[in-house]
This record gives sequence, structure tokens and C-alpha cells, in this order.
Amino acid sequence: MDLKGYLQERREIIDQALKRLVPGQGDYPERLHEAIGYSVFAGGKRLRPILALAACEIVCGEWGKAVVPGCALEMIHTYSLIHDDLPDMDDDDLRRGVATSHKVFGEAMAILAGDALLTHAFDVLSRDEDGGLPDRVRLGIIQEIAGAAGSRGMVGGQAVDIISEGEKEVDQPTLEYIHTHKTGAMIRSAVRVGAIAGGATADQLRALTRYGDRIGLAFQITDDILDLMGDEKALGKNVGSDLARKKKTYPALLGIPESRERAQVLASAAVEALNQFEARRESLRAIANFVVERMN
Amino acid sequence: MDLKGYLQERREIIDQALKRLVPGQGDYPERLHEAIGYSVFAGGKRLRPILALAACEIVCGEWGKAVVPGCALEMIHTYSLIHDDLPDMDDDDLRRGVATSHKVFGEAMAILAGDALLTHAFDVLSRDEDGGLPDRVRLGIIQEIAGAAGSRGMVGGQAVDIISEGEKEVDQPTLEYIHTHKTGAMIRSAVRVGAIAGGATADQLRALTRYGDRIGLAFQITDDILDLMGDEKALGKNVGSDLARKKKTYPALLGIPESRERAQVLASAAVEALNQFEARRESLRAIANFVVERMN
Repeated sequence: MDLKGYLQERREIIDQALKRLVPGQGDYPERLHEAIGYSVFAGGKRLRPILALAACEIVCGEWGKAVVPGCALEMIHTYSLIHDDLPDMDDDDLRRGVATSHKVFGEAMAILAGDALLTHAFDVLSRDEDGGLPDRVRLGIIQEIAGAAGSRGMVGGQAVDIISEGEKEVDQPTLEYIHTHKTGAMIRSAVRVGAIAGGATADQLRALTRYGDRIGLAFQITDDILDLMGDEKALGKNVGSDLARKKKTYPALLGIPESRERAQVLASAAVEALNQFEARRESLRAIANFVVERMN
Repeated sequence: MDLKGYLQERREIIDQALKRLVPGQGDYPERLHEAIGYSVFAGGKRLRPILALAACEIVCGEWGKAVVPGCALEMIHTYSLIHDDLPDMDDDDLRRGVATSHKVFGEAMAILAGDALLTHAFDVLSRDEDGGLPDRVRLGIIQEIAGAAGSRGMVGGQAVDIISEGEKEVDQPTLEYIHTHKTGAMIRSAVRVGAIAGGATADQLRALTRYGDRIGLAFQITDDILDLMGDEKALGKNVGSDLARKKKTYPALLGIPESRERAQVLASAAVEALNQFEARRESLRAIANFVVERMN
């Protein structure tokens, strides 16, 4: 399988849909919509929508029904990056290879662009744009995403991350909570959303949830390693910032070699969870490898 | 009609429901959930949910179906207050009579509490808690609220307000845009959400939308007057802050007497829009008066 070509093709599908779905480029208020477009189209990997499309496809043989939900996931991911980068939060000035939103548009406009993207994600989920999803399924997807993004999911993870920064010692359960919630919750949810859109059985959803859990953690460990040793150009954001802020990470706790092995083991375990899908699992297998091989 | 007793009774219905629906008081992360509860239960007027209940009742004779959507409106209203009060935005330190969220919990936790409340509003809207609303109606309500709260609604209004602050002259259309979007959009939406929950006909929805538009603007004009001449205790937030920040307001533009008259005319026009409802319109009529009589 040509992973590079596959990712490229899927990224373009998502980018096209985002151009259609992201609110009013050029609309009033221009500055706000400029800020929204700036962050959404700064060239992300689109990992979450790509996962949603692949999970939908593995379940029902086609990815079309996961495009709008995938774009909603990307809007929420982008809002979380904008807010996390704020001076009051992680205070980063580089993201996706360009200056962060608040550096270009100011803090107020960055907060509002994030708020608008989060709100708009639910707007597109509530509309029957593609006509492909039954109302009940669409409500299920809204519930899934709101749960994963909320105070017991992604926002909860970021809150504990912020609270822990000031503390000397962070125990292993707290570190795991941060990872499984701050990043993991939305990656797991991306896989689940695709599965739900594709009409997964309870058994299929369980298997794909396991897959999502495992690559979610593998992704975070890999990100931590990249932060420690990657170059900024490849990563598109400041490196070494975790260390500078004394963030608790896997490599800090276990060292780089053991962290790297942990990520590999998780990726393999993720693929194992897909056994029941047999022939169709090729793309999700390739994505699992991509998630941990970014570091090589 | 005993307006005071009526408002008190409805407020208690909403407060009870919010206690059930607002995420995990005492749940992990405690600090985040504490910040969420702090702002939600700081004692708001619950005007938006009360409007939703009344609009539902005027349409179908009962208010029950509007309780969950009304609570979602209040969560979104509360998130918008938390974010608007941030130092990077309007920089207020008093709200609903107590210190603002960021003063108590810090900027990061305030941003996250707002993000969580916005997200959770859509979570409760997606669930069939009360079992009373068909899926199609629930999706319609999500769409209505997301549209009113997003970049072409409330967030758009706040963006233009922030952008205009630095400018010397703000023209009348810009001032009207800010008012009809920053505050007006969600008040109008509250009425519409109640009507949709109650199963309004297109004609009923049109009439109630007109009512909502008019009291929305009347509410904002009254707020501006109160900011200029009210006392902080009655208003529960800093007064004179519009003037200090050279915000463009109706009283600044037209003077207090003419602004006051404008608000009264709008309230009367709002009630006129309810003609078709005859006997049932008593509570919405009383609420319209309440909106402008706060100043007396």
C-alpha cells in the first residue's frame, strides 16, 4: 500500500470539504473569519478525519458518510490548538509551521476564533448536508464528539496538564490521564465517529475503540519524543517546550528508547484489535504505523 | 399576573435542571468542574431559559420540552460571560455580583471552563434525557443554537465589539450589528428554540422570532443605560465600564431619555407581534416589560 499517496489523497478530500464547510471566508466580521481560516488551513495532517474515513470504510466499504463528521473533528482539533497555544495556556508561538493565531490576530480574536470553530463543528453535524446519515446516527455522533471534547475528555486533559505544570512530582496515573484525555480522547473518538457513521455493530465498535485507544496513546508518546529530539521544521511547532515547562512526558519518565518501544508495541496491539476485519484493515494498519514512524 | 413569583418559580425549575445537567460537580478534574459550577450557579436571571419555556408554552400549552434546550442556552450564555470577562477581552472582575472566573481560577481554567460549558451544551442537546423531542426537532434545535452562537451570531458580535473598541468613530450600522449579534442573537434564539421544541408552525415561529428580535434589542439598550447609571449591586457587574472603554452604546449615541423611549417602543412592538396567540401571551408580555423595566 502506498501510504504517502493514500494520506495525500485523503487529506485533499478533507481539505476540499473543509473549504466548503468552514464558515464564511470573506464574510463579516472579516477579521474573525480570517483568523478561523488561518488556523484551519495552516496545513495540518488531518489525522482525525483520515481516521474517521478509514474506520467508516472498514465497517461499510465506503468513506463518504464520514466526511462531514471528520471535518467537525478537525474543527474541534483546530480550536483546541488555538486555545492551547494562548499565552495563558501553553504559550506557544509556532504551530503547523507558522505563527500561532494569537501572535497574528491577538489574544481576543484567537479566543473567539476557537469558540467559533467549536460552535461551528456542531452546526455542520446538525445539518443534513450529504443526506447520508439518519437523524438518530447524527445525534449519536454529536453525543460522541461532545463527550470526547468536553470536561471529562479533551478539556479535562488540558485542565490537568495546566494544573500539573506547577507541581514538582506528577504520578503515573495523572500522566496517563493527561495523555488519554488531552490527545487520546479525540483520536479514539475519530475512529468511533467513523465507525458509527458507517453503521458499525456493537462488536465492531468495540474493536475499533480498542484500536483508537491504542493509537491515541502511541501518538502522544511519539509526539513527546519528537518534542524532545525532533526538528521544528518537521514538527511544525516549537521543540523542547515540554522540557522547558517541566512537562511530565513518557520520555522524561521512561527514557527515549523505552518510550519508542512502548509506542511500537501499542501500534501493533492496535492492529491486532482489527483481526475481525481481515482484508479491509490495510489502511488502518498503515495509519497505525504512520502514527509511530513519524519519528524516524 | 404576579411577574415576580412567576420568574422565581421558573428560575427554580431551571436551576434544578441545571444541577442535574451541568457536568460532574466533584468529578475529576475537580478544579475545572469547580470553575464550571462557580459560574453557572452564581445566580443569573435565567432570562434565556425562561424565554424558551414561555415560548414553548405559548405554542403548545406546556413548557416541559423546553427545559433541556433552555439549560443548554444558559450554559452557552455562561460560557460567553466567562470568556468575555477575560483580561484579553472586556477585562471585567465582577459578574453576577461575584468575582469573575479568571479572578478566582486563573485565566487558563476560565478559558477551559468556558470551552467545557459550550461543548456540554451540545452534549445535553444530543441526549434524549426527557424523551420528549423527536430526533428531527432535536437536530433543528442544535442547528438553531449553533447558528446563533457562532461566528455569524454571538461570537461575531463580540468580535466586532472588540475590533471597534480601538476605533474613534463607530457608525450606526456597526453599533446595531454588535447589539443584534452579541446579545440579541441568543435572546432571539431562546424564543425560537422554545417555539421549535413546542412544535410551532412556520407562522408562529415567524411571530415569535419578531418578538425575540425586538426584546433582544430592548434588552441591550436597557443594559447600556444600566451600565451608565445603575448601581453595581443591582446589576451584579461593574458599571461605567462601557464609558471607560469608550464603548459605543445607545445612550452614548442618543442620550438616556431617547434610549429609554426606544426600549419601551421595542417592548410594545414585541408584544404586538404576539397578537395571534391571544389569551396565552400573558407571560411573554410580562417578560417584555420586565426586560425594559429593570431600569426603574
